[in-house]
Amino acid sequence: MTTQRKALSGSARRNEASHRAILAAAFELVQEVGYAKLSIEGIAARAGVGKQTIYRWWPSKGAVLFDAFLMLSEQPDGEGAGLPDTGDLEADLKAVLRATIEELNDPRYDEAMRALNTEITHDPALAALYAERLDGPMRELKRQRLRSAQRAGQLAEDLDLDVAVDLLWGPLLNRWLQRSGELTPGYADSIVETALHGLRPRS
Amino acid sequence: MTTQRKALSGSARRNEASHRAILAAAFELVQEVGYAKLSIEGIAARAGVGKQTIYRWWPSKGAVLFDAFLMLSEQPDGEGAGLPDTGDLEADLKAVLRATIEELNDPRYDEAMRALNTEITHDPALAALYAERLDGPMRELKRQRLRSAQRAGQLAEDLDLDVAVDLLWGPLLNRWLQRSGELTPGYADSIVETALHGLRPRS
Repeated sequence: MTTQRKALSGSARRNEASHRAILAAAFELVQEVGYAKLSIEGIAARAGVGKQTIYRWWPSKGAVLFDAFLMLSEQPDGEGAGLPDTGDLEADLKAVLRATIEELNDPRYDEAMRALNTEITHDPALAALYAERLDGPMRELKRQRLRSAQRAGQLAEDLDLDVAVDLLWGPLLNRWLQRSGELTPGYADSIVETALHGLRPRS
Repeated sequence: MTTQRKALSGSARRNEASHRAILAAAFELVQEVGYAKLSIEGIAARAGVGKQTIYRWWPSKGAVLFDAFLMLSEQPDGEGAGLPDTGDLEADLKAVLRATIEELNDPRYDEAMRALNTEITHDPALAALYAERLDGPMRELKRQRLRSAQRAGQLAEDLDLDVAVDLLWGPLLNRWLQRSGELTPGYADSIVETALHGLRPRS
C-alpha cells in the first residue's frame, strides 16, 4: 500500500510539475512571439515535454493560455484572499487600483493579457468562460469590499455594486485596451476620488 | 474651360462614388465574414471596382476599415456637430450614452468595431492614429459639453474632464469589449447617475 501510494504521488508530482512548466512556457512564449505565432509545438519545446502531453490536457493554445491565467489568479500571493479592508475605503481602493495598473503595465503579461482580451472580444463562448472562472470570482471580491463599506455607511445605500465595480475598473481596462493614455498611479487615484465623490460640485 | 471643369467634376464624382462604395463594401463584408477573412479582393468584388482601384488609395484592409469608420464619423447625422446641450446635463448625458449603446449594439458595425479595437490593442501605431483622427475629435466634443456644464456650476470646478470622460464612457466600452454584461438603456442611465452623484451616500 505504502509503496503504491508513494508511486502514485510521485507520478502526480511529475504531472503537476509538467502542468506548471507548460503554463509558464505559454506565458513566456506569447510575450516573446505574440499570440498569432504561439504554437503547441513551441510551448512543448520550451516546457521540455512532448506535444502529446499538452494535447492530453488541452485542446488548443487558447485553452492553455486561459489556464495559465487561472494558475496566476490562484497563486497564494494573488488577490484571491480578498481585497484589503482597513476601514479606509478610499485608501484601500487606491491601493487595489494601483495594483491593477501595475499588473496591466507588467511587460511579462502584456501580450498574453491582450491576446486573451482579443479572443474574448471575438468569442462569446470564451467570454462566458472568462466571466465564470476568472472575472466572476474577482468581481465578487470587489463587490464584497464595497458591500462592507456600504454596511459601514460609507457608500450610498441604494448603490448598484456592479455599476460601482464597472465605474472603478472600467476606465482602467478601457484605457489599457484602447491605449488612450498612460496608466499611472496618479490616474488610479483620480478615478477613485472622482468615482467616490462624483462629478457634481461638492456641497 | 467650362467643358474641362465639367469633365473634372464628373471624374471627381465618379472617384467619390467609388470611394464610398469601397468603404461601404468593407463594412458589409467584415460583418459577414469576420476580419480575419476580409480581403481586398472581396471588397473590390462587392464594391464593383478593380483591386487596383483600392490599392491606389489604401495600403491594406486595415486602412480601408479605418477610413470606413472615419466616413461614418463624418456623416451629417453623426455626432460631429457637437453633443446635445439643453442645459440639463443629466438628461443630455443619458441621451448620448444611450446613443453610444445603440451604436455598440448595432449588428451592422459590431464585427467591424471589434476588429478595429483588436487591431488597436495590438498595434500602438494604429492606436495613435485612432486617438488622433477618431477618438480625439469625439473626446473633444465630450469635453466641450462637460466644460459648458462646469462653467454653469453643474460640475466640480477642479474636475479633470478627461477623467470624467473615462468615467462615463469607459464602463460602456469595457462591458462591450469584454462582453461582461448586457448594454441596455437602463445601464447607460445608471452609469450617468452614479458618475454624477458618486458612490458615497448623498448628504
